[in-house]
Amino acid sequence: MSLLVVGTVAFDAIETPFGKTDKIVGGAASYIALASSYFTDEINLVSVVGDDFPQDFMNTLKGQGVNLDGLQIKQGEKSFFWSGKYHNDMNSRDTLETQLNVLADFDPIVPESYKTCDFLMLGNLMPNVQQKVLSQLTKRPKLIVLDTMNFWMDIALPELLETIKGIDVLTINDSEARQLSGEYSLVKAAQKILTMGPKVLVIKKGEHGALLFNKEEVFFAPALPLEDVFDPTGAGDSFAGGFIGYLAKTKDISFENMKRAIIFGSAMASFTVEKFGTERLIGLSQDDVSNRVQEFVDLVQFDISLV
Amino acid sequence: MSLLVVGTVAFDAIETPFGKTDKIVGGAASYIALASSYFTDEINLVSVVGDDFPQDFMNTLKGQGVNLDGLQIKQGEKSFFWSGKYHNDMNSRDTLETQLNVLADFDPIVPESYKTCDFLMLGNLMPNVQQKVLSQLTKRPKLIVLDTMNFWMDIALPELLETIKGIDVLTINDSEARQLSGEYSLVKAAQKILTMGPKVLVIKKGEHGALLFNKEEVFFAPALPLEDVFDPTGAGDSFAGGFIGYLAKTKDISFENMKRAIIFGSAMASFTVEKFGTERLIGLSQDDVSNRVQEFVDLVQFDISLV
Repeated sequence: MSLLVVGTVAFDAIETPFGKTDKIVGGAASYIALASSYFTDEINLVSVVGDDFPQDFMNTLKGQGVNLDGLQIKQGEKSFFWSGKYHNDMNSRDTLETQLNVLADFDPIVPESYKTCDFLMLGNLMPNVQQKVLSQLTKRPKLIVLDTMNFWMDIALPELLETIKGIDVLTINDSEARQLSGEYSLVKAAQKILTMGPKVLVIKKGEHGALLFNKEEVFFAPALPLEDVFDPTGAGDSFAGGFIGYLAKTKDISFENMKRAIIFGSAMASFTVEKFGTERLIGLSQDDVSNRVQEFVDLVQFDISLV
Repeated sequence: MSLLVVGTVAFDAIETPFGKTDKIVGGAASYIALASSYFTDEINLVSVVGDDFPQDFMNTLKGQGVNLDGLQIKQGEKSFFWSGKYHNDMNSRDTLETQLNVLADFDPIVPESYKTCDFLMLGNLMPNVQQKVLSQLTKRPKLIVLDTMNFWMDIALPELLETIKGIDVLTINDSEARQLSGEYSLVKAAQKILTMGPKVLVIKKGEHGALLFNKEEVFFAPALPLEDVFDPTGAGDSFAGGFIGYLAKTKDISFENMKRAIIFGSAMASFTVEKFGTERLIGLSQDDVSNRVQEFVDLVQFDISLV
C-alpha cells in the first residue's frame, strides 16, 4: 500500500569514537525511505533540499523505489546541515553545528497523487510542518505514525500537542517520553501520553531496545547486541521506516502485527549503526533482512511451559 | 538438588525517591536464599551475623526451607551494615555508610553435610572468602555460579581472577563487565571474560534486562516494565537466586534451560523491587510466580514466519 514519508533530506557531519566524516547524506526521511523500501514499493517522499544536494543520492533513492515528485529542490539555497559528536557510550551526543538553510521556511507541498496515501510517516520535523502535510491530505490514511524529539517539546509544545491529537502511533525516546508526560516511570509515562491522542506509543531506548504500548498491552523488542555500534545516526529513523514499511506491506495494523513490525524496525536500525550514515541501508537483499530478523528471534525466543 | 548459598546476611538502611527505611534485613544471601526457595527445597546457607540479628528473620528463612546450620552467630559482635541512597533514575546510588563488623574477619565454615552440594551460589563477597568455601567442598558441584562487584575489581582483582578461573557462571552488571574486560562493547566484553574461566556470563542491566552469553550464543531477557521501582536493593541477588534455584529444580544446566532460568530470575527480581528490602519475597505462592513469568512471556513473545 502507498506510503508517504515526510522529513528531512540533508547533510550530516558525524564524529564517533570510531572516526569522523565530512559532509555525508542523512536526514530522517532518507533513513525512513531507505529502510521502508525493503518492505513496500510505493514510497512517496515530501521534503526539501538546496541545489547543493547530490544527484547521486537522489538516484539511489529512486533506485530503491522511492518517488521524489514531492522533493522540492531550492535553487540558490543550501540543504539542511547538522554536525554532531557522539560520546563514548553512543547514547548521548553534542550538537556541534546546525544550519537550517532550506528548512527555515519549508512549506511542504503534497503532490496530488500522494494525497490519498494509505500510510503516513511524519518524520521528525517542526510540528507545524507535520500539521501542514496532514491538512493537505484528501483522505485519512489508514495509519499515521509521527516521530518527534525533545527540541520541539522545548520550543513548540502547543503545536506538537495539537499535531499528535490526530495521529495513531507516536515514536519518541525514553527521555522524551519522560519530558512529554512529566512521569519518570515509562509505564506511567505511556499511560499519560496515550490520553493525548496517539493510540499506540513506541518508546525507543537505543541500545536497550524499544517498548510498544497501547492502553491495555505492552511489548518489548530488544536491540541486537553488536560488537561495535559504529554510528547511531539515523537508527531511530531506520527503525520507524522498517516499522511502517512492514505494516504497509502486510496491510495489518493490529497490535499483534505491530509487535512483528517493531522487530523488523529494530532489524533495520541494527544495520544502520554498523556503518556511517545511510551506507548500510543501500543494496541489502531480502535474505540479509530475513537473517537479521532471525537473529532477533534467536535472541529472545525461549520455551517455558507453565503448568 | 541441594543448593549451597554463600553471601552476606546483614542490615541495610535504604533511601529511595519513594521513602526511607531504618535498619532492615538484607544481604546478598538473604535475597538469594529467599528467591531460590520457590524452586528447590534443599537450601543450605553459609554466612555470618552478629548477636544483634533478629531471630524473626532467621525463622522466616527456616520457614521458607532454608537450612541455617552454616550461619555463624558471633556473640558480642555486630552484623554487617550498609546504608545507601538511590538517585532518581534508580540505576545509580551513593553508599552513605558501610560497617563491616562481623564481615571483617569472616572465616566461612562449610558444615560437613553441605560439602557435597550439587549447586553452589557464591553471592557477592570478598573473593578470598568465596575461594575458601570452594576449597572446603569434597565434591565438585554440578554448577558453580559466582556474583561479584566493581569494588572487588578495584581492590582485589588478582584474587577475583583466581577465583573465577574455576567457576561455571559469572554474574556481573554492564559497567562491571566493561571494567573487568576493558572493552566497551558488551559483546566484546563477554568474549573476553569467557576466556577467564567462566563458561557462561550473565550481564545484568537492571531495568534494561539481562544478557546471557556462552562462547557461541547470546540470549536476552527483558526486565518487566513496572509502574514503580520502589527499591532496587537485592534485585541482582534475587535474580541470581531465581536463576540457580530454577536450574537446581530442573537439574538441567544446558544453555537452553539457562534461558528459562534467566526469565525466572528476572521474575524474582521484579518482585523484590516492588517493596523495600526482602518483604516482597516472603510468602509468594506458586501462582504468583507463574503469573509473573507469564507476564514476561507476553512481553516478548511474537510470531514471525520467515519465508
